[in-house]
Amino acid sequence: MPELRQNPATKEWVIIATERAKRPEDFCRSNNLPPLPEHDPGCPFCEGNESTTPPEILAYRNFGTCPNTPGWWIRIVPNKFAALVPEGNLRRIKSEEFFRYMDGVGEHEVLIEDPKHNATFHNMNQKQIEEIFLAYRERYLALREDPRYEMIIIFKNHGFNAGTSLIHTHSQLVATPVTPSHIRHRLEEAMRYFDDNGECVYCVEAKKEQKVQERIVFETDNFLSFIPFAASSPFEIMVLPKEHVSSFESSPAGKIKELAYVMKQVMMRIHVGLTHPDYNYMIFSSPCHEKDVEYYHWHLKIVPRVASVAGFEMGSGIYINTVIPEKAAQFLRNVKF
Amino acid sequence: MPELRQNPATKEWVIIATERAKRPEDFCRSNNLPPLPEHDPGCPFCEGNESTTPPEILAYRNFGTCPNTPGWWIRIVPNKFAALVPEGNLRRIKSEEFFRYMDGVGEHEVLIEDPKHNATFHNMNQKQIEEIFLAYRERYLALREDPRYEMIIIFKNHGFNAGTSLIHTHSQLVATPVTPSHIRHRLEEAMRYFDDNGECVYCVEAKKEQKVQERIVFETDNFLSFIPFAASSPFEIMVLPKEHVSSFESSPAGKIKELAYVMKQVMMRIHVGLTHPDYNYMIFSSPCHEKDVEYYHWHLKIVPRVASVAGFEMGSGIYINTVIPEKAAQFLRNVKF
Repeated sequence: MPELRQNPATKEWVIIATERAKRPEDFCRSNNLPPLPEHDPGCPFCEGNESTTPPEILAYRNFGTCPNTPGWWIRIVPNKFAALVPEGNLRRIKSEEFFRYMDGVGEHEVLIEDPKHNATFHNMNQKQIEEIFLAYRERYLALREDPRYEMIIIFKNHGFNAGTSLIHTHSQLVATPVTPSHIRHRLEEAMRYFDDNGECVYCVEAKKEQKVQERIVFETDNFLSFIPFAASSPFEIMVLPKEHVSSFESSPAGKIKELAYVMKQVMMRIHVGLTHPDYNYMIFSSPCHEKDVEYYHWHLKIVPRVASVAGFEMGSGIYINTVIPEKAAQFLRNVKF
Repeated sequence: MPELRQNPATKEWVIIATERAKRPEDFCRSNNLPPLPEHDPGCPFCEGNESTTPPEILAYRNFGTCPNTPGWWIRIVPNKFAALVPEGNLRRIKSEEFFRYMDGVGEHEVLIEDPKHNATFHNMNQKQIEEIFLAYRERYLALREDPRYEMIIIFKNHGFNAGTSLIHTHSQLVATPVTPSHIRHRLEEAMRYFDDNGECVYCVEAKKEQKVQERIVFETDNFLSFIPFAASSPFEIMVLPKEHVSSFESSPAGKIKELAYVMKQVMMRIHVGLTHPDYNYMIFSSPCHEKDVEYYHWHLKIVPRVASVAGFEMGSGIYINTVIPEKAAQFLRNVKF
């Protein structure tokens, strides 16, 4: 019997499709890609090719080395093919008194996570992951100061099925001058829960998941990673701080260090357990002008791209998940590496 | 300069990314798939293999032929791997006083659009397309009578990138016992527009598009097909009746005939212009229990799968469209076939 489950935070329903249920092992890929070289002369993100990207915004580099030269271990540059640009007018305009538009004002940055072409997030040492998250935070805090921006979205696309066009490991930051309606709906649902119950819905979700235990993938003192009760796709993972905090960028350095440890543990389980799938991760943080709110709770979502979206999902917004979340979590908990 | 555009009906923002802009021609596929045989002995949807599907619910077949035997030109059967099943309890249950779920009650039907294995929607004659839409309507009207169902979603997945697993041309109908939050948000926005302006937002959209003209792909007396002002992906097309009508299944036979003509014209343009891309289409109709409402307007959306969804879209809900809608429409208008 299939089951309909509702995400308690977003109110979205998903179908847990038992009739089409697959075993976690069915998602393993058999095709092994050829190994990458440590350096690719044609790759703009490789060390030595710094002149082929726009000038760097920030780099963590060896003392005494010059900007836009080798010697860095993390490097942030403007996206050469930016979706939004940091100039233009913020005014909303209506044509025909109906169609609303505005200049595409914003920021679009690329964070190159490693100088080596063959580095991968899951093979990095924990210290490097920690510095990636510290760099996210540093850019987040800087971009938040610009009053034009409403939202900052940090995300990573790994692999062609996850929408990346450059294979060299990187993530991206985009600042937008609008709050997307998708995010607004999440905020409203969280606000409604808070108004009804006097508690943050994500805080309650974390407590309930700790009580039930069966969907937890990995847990530390301050962080919980689990497959949500109403996960919209197989092996989708939520990582969130146990303590209430609405914005990612408020996390102190100690917490970032612990987050890096959790990310390493979780990504290794995905990589080994599902044999290096493509994936995305996204950080959901409160909007720039609502940074300390009682009702919202920052979190990170990891989505291995093992399922595809078809007409039903596009027409209804209901996702069909073919792996029972409890089984997916058990599978990932048991991965050895 | 990129542009942010807001969908007037859903309030979703999209980025029209001029820095990454592509020419419509860039989306043409070069790989020609080998032609399919007219009959595949292993295909459950081929004529002669009727016994390999669950028993038919409805078929348009030659006079005197028996159910579940050859002689049909359209055939509807239950999905063998149904996402929802027509039994179970409608009661919403909460576990841990927090996680809401219910039995996966619903219907999941497959409409086999042609007995021939190598038939394709765009190559069918218009009469066959008309009968497909008449069959949608017939099943829609039947399913709507079941008080358990809140929404009926009709959709088609064409090609592996569009999420299909069986190549034989077919579409699907799903009846759900809940109104998805994605649909609820659309209804609420449409309601808000109606309350403010006393007009259906889709009626106004159609009128404005007719006035501006530049995004229209194909138009008849009663139907308009156009690339929306804030299309979320390249070549996404809206087809809607010009006259206000909230539910698809209320369309009289004459309108269905005209709709079939529009679909044939539009699908040929997509097929020839973009060299047979994979695509989805979905019918958005009002919920079963709100079938005649002033504020909602049924429409059909066609999405050629030429772009992929990555972390930014998943994190923000903002889509990046790399083809300017006016240029996409001009390109499709000019396709010769």
